[in-house]
Amino acid sequence: MRITLAQLNYHVGNFEKNSRLIIDAIRKAEKDKSDLVIFSELSLTGYPPHDLLEHRDFIDKCYKYLYLIASECNTIAAIVGAPAINKNSNGKKLYNAAYLLAEGKIKDFVFKSLLPTYDIFDEYRYFEPATKFKVINLKGEKLAVTICEDLWDEQSFENNFTSSRMYAVSPMDELARQSPDIIINISASPFAHTKTESKREIFTRKAARHKLPVFMVNQVGANTDLIFEGNSMVVGPEGNIIDVFPSFKDHTASYELTEVINNRKVFKIETDRIEMIYSALILGLKDYFEKMNFRSAVLGLSGGIDSAVCLCIAASALGPSKVRALLLPSMYSSQHSVDDAILLSNNLGVKYDIINIEKAYRAIEESLSEIMKGMPRDVTEENIQARLRSLMLMAVSNKFGNILLNTSNKSETAVGYSTLYGDMAGSISVLGDVYKTDIYRLAEYINREQQLIPGNIITKAPSAELSPGQKDSDSLPDYEILDSILYQYIELQKSSSDIKGPNINPDLVKKIIDLINKNEFKRFQAPPILRISSKAFGIGRRMPLVGIY
Amino acid sequence: MRITLAQLNYHVGNFEKNSRLIIDAIRKAEKDKSDLVIFSELSLTGYPPHDLLEHRDFIDKCYKYLYLIASECNTIAAIVGAPAINKNSNGKKLYNAAYLLAEGKIKDFVFKSLLPTYDIFDEYRYFEPATKFKVINLKGEKLAVTICEDLWDEQSFENNFTSSRMYAVSPMDELARQSPDIIINISASPFAHTKTESKREIFTRKAARHKLPVFMVNQVGANTDLIFEGNSMVVGPEGNIIDVFPSFKDHTASYELTEVINNRKVFKIETDRIEMIYSALILGLKDYFEKMNFRSAVLGLSGGIDSAVCLCIAASALGPSKVRALLLPSMYSSQHSVDDAILLSNNLGVKYDIINIEKAYRAIEESLSEIMKGMPRDVTEENIQARLRSLMLMAVSNKFGNILLNTSNKSETAVGYSTLYGDMAGSISVLGDVYKTDIYRLAEYINREQQLIPGNIITKAPSAELSPGQKDSDSLPDYEILDSILYQYIELQKSSSDIKGPNINPDLVKKIIDLINKNEFKRFQAPPILRISSKAFGIGRRMPLVGIY
Repeated sequence: MRITLAQLNYHVGNFEKNSRLIIDAIRKAEKDKSDLVIFSELSLTGYPPHDLLEHRDFIDKCYKYLYLIASECNTIAAIVGAPAINKNSNGKKLYNAAYLLAEGKIKDFVFKSLLPTYDIFDEYRYFEPATKFKVINLKGEKLAVTICEDLWDEQSFENNFTSSRMYAVSPMDELARQSPDIIINISASPFAHTKTESKREIFTRKAARHKLPVFMVNQVGANTDLIFEGNSMVVGPEGNIIDVFPSFKDHTASYELTEVINNRKVFKIETDRIEMIYSALILGLKDYFEKMNFRSAVLGLSGGIDSAVCLCIAASALGPSKVRALLLPSMYSSQHSVDDAILLSNNLGVKYDIINIEKAYRAIEESLSEIMKGMPRDVTEENIQARLRSLMLMAVSNKFGNILLNTSNKSETAVGYSTLYGDMAGSISVLGDVYKTDIYRLAEYINREQQLIPGNIITKAPSAELSPGQKDSDSLPDYEILDSILYQYIELQKSSSDIKGPNINPDLVKKIIDLINKNEFKRFQAPPILRISSKAFGIGRRMPLVGIY
Repeated sequence: MRITLAQLNYHVGNFEKNSRLIIDAIRKAEKDKSDLVIFSELSLTGYPPHDLLEHRDFIDKCYKYLYLIASECNTIAAIVGAPAINKNSNGKKLYNAAYLLAEGKIKDFVFKSLLPTYDIFDEYRYFEPATKFKVINLKGEKLAVTICEDLWDEQSFENNFTSSRMYAVSPMDELARQSPDIIINISASPFAHTKTESKREIFTRKAARHKLPVFMVNQVGANTDLIFEGNSMVVGPEGNIIDVFPSFKDHTASYELTEVINNRKVFKIETDRIEMIYSALILGLKDYFEKMNFRSAVLGLSGGIDSAVCLCIAASALGPSKVRALLLPSMYSSQHSVDDAILLSNNLGVKYDIINIEKAYRAIEESLSEIMKGMPRDVTEENIQARLRSLMLMAVSNKFGNILLNTSNKSETAVGYSTLYGDMAGSISVLGDVYKTDIYRLAEYINREQQLIPGNIITKAPSAELSPGQKDSDSLPDYEILDSILYQYIELQKSSSDIKGPNINPDLVKKIIDLINKNEFKRFQAPPILRISSKAFGIGRRMPLVGIY
């Protein structure tokens, strides 16, 4: 049996595009003399379809395109992921299904059993879990078809609770009783820079445990905040990785089953964390623009490192001609910030304009002078500058159709060192899941061959430049310390007393956690954030606003 | 047996306050010679605690206060809702529990079986469902203790799918086999103006089916977007409602079990939908300010009906002295709008200030003149005005500590007839779940005794006043028609071909649905919205941004 894995980039709800991608891959695999071509989880709808699943006409469309695809499967078979209507009188409306399409029709199907309902996943919101397990027969081979989490039954919690495993059922152990010949897993598993290795182990462990080859197809591409790295895999029956598909790229390849079973080779994997993050952000931004049908971007270039790294990513993702920079200096902006920003724009070949906000700022100050008479200067005046900048940026966005990019990083987003409706504005946050210390690493990575980002931008002390001589370090600890606390609290969900490290003391931990919690109201109104970690701000982290912690 | 129901207003995560409320009620019930006092679901944490449940130290605090409360239960018993750690090695970390506290300790407990995971509910994100059912013995009576959704097993879907009931298990049928004497239900069921009657029927039906009295305690009060009406109930064994607690108020009352069993009275319920919505919004706003520790509010008063109704609600919820209005006229504002706004402020006794935005607007226009040279006027200039207003409002908010209220209604929020970072700004949206046609009904209700809102505000044609002679009706259909389409699509989740009504045609339906879907990106950054319907924008409606519908 010859098996093709198709790692493709689906667009949520775009049945025209998704079915065309699937049908093209089926035809190509057919020419390649393949017997079976495998697509990822919910490939037909794209992942995650969210509450579109609640609309009956969305599901009807899904079936329509599924039949269309089935009609293309004559000499070849395909496994396609799509929702299925639950035909029982009880339970959730849908199942999360893997369909075997063959002989021009829906030949067989299985439903997903383990429904991730944590972090960014809401599957039990829509789907009834399968409680029966059956292998699928195809040309004399018995396929154990599993859907993503179905193979993740052994994952442990990273916490201090008693329960160490989320699931009591192991779908693969159930299927193993029917003596399958192959394990197939169709996935839609998003990227997290700390998880690439542990993800691979899931499949190598299952292969070795059951002494069966594993063919895993993951989605690639981004849908809004979620970025999928692909990295589809073929694993031999000894748990040896035979092939790993490229990260963040469409890819299709075919394998002879007998060769996979007898192959003892071990695929060598070399990944660099910062390179992975960089590639993820490029793809995330590119796909956001393509799938939203946006043509060009604008951002405020301050002369600081965040907007500089963001501009480099945007120029790479969209092309320099599709990005424009706006320099919006005030009376507090240093000349070197303006100079650095111009130099960077020129290095990248990005068009820039300079709008000095001082005059408009003075007019606003004057309009407010009566109501604020005799009041001392405070954060109000800083916020007016930040909001006036976003007003200018949004005006350019509205007038020219350039979509505003948000340039905030995860560290400042966490502690609320940012202005709502000011520098928090934007259609998408490019760096909102990247800690400041990793922003520096990204800058180094971007400069690895030539110095695109001027050295001064990287070496100068971070400053919001909203009042004379202001520095980030006036209000915040060193970013090395801050980021370590943030990571332990946000990603690892540690209790405050368990947060430890060099130069970290309980008072500082308390201060930082208070800042994180007090600023939930700001983040509630933040743009979607490209997710690259195991716990990003946004839909995967649901904290109450009204709440004492 | 004498039973006390305590309908109380909990604050999420505020263990100090919640435990004090609970202990006070225990002592009061003890004086009242009660044998058992019942509190609502997750009363100790307040509902909904969201991802605070994932932090081990939060759960540890919970146990600490639970033991404290237990130590107060000596001559009396109490049923308190709180999370419980799952002590099995498999499954979710927690259970959603009802504890029986008596003899100074945790005497018994049951876990919730049916875990709502739809709309605003995410319970399967945190909790393992109970699969065993047992009655609790107390002083010779057998109590069937159920937690909220546990009694909702018969609820049907309002849709066109096959599955008509969400759950295959009926916890109460299971408990009935153990011949209980009483049904107890502890709830945290939020208000929806279309659901008050169907909610009551759940309890009357269960009482009649099992020929048992039902004691139901619901949470009252608001936590951010979710408002709980209370309306705790006592139902006789024939399904006759004996008592309904007041809406939107703390309340405690005691009942002799034998009297309840023998009582044939039928409690007369009179509710007015608009009055309920009005009271819900008052409580929602009041609790948001109290629980966020905010003291005073500010809003932009345009002379239109939305900000007028919002100001009346704010003045009622917070007191007129805690609210200030800002009139921000531009060159397009009509004099009558300013006059109407002043008259309303005076009627309510609310302080107002006028800041003309024209001068600052001109300065911004001038700053942008070079970059926008030769470009025709479009929506950009309208948005600049809206954003300049929010900049002024946020400046006042920052300087004086007044919290900005958002005054957008559900109709304009749905179709995106609003400016992001402009009139969409605010810490909380007061009217974002109220359709425009209901805003008019609220205005009539507010004016029922005296004309607080000037007649002109109610009768004039709605206008954003962002360009000369602009009217809402230039861009949108009549609000009666628009709201009917919106309700059918959003609340009833109808397919476009099923949306019908007077003056509704398929082209219009398509146009409106396209507007709704295209504006998901704006709503993604909207403030939390006080929820009064069965489907509000916000956490209960999760639509993809990148998506074709």
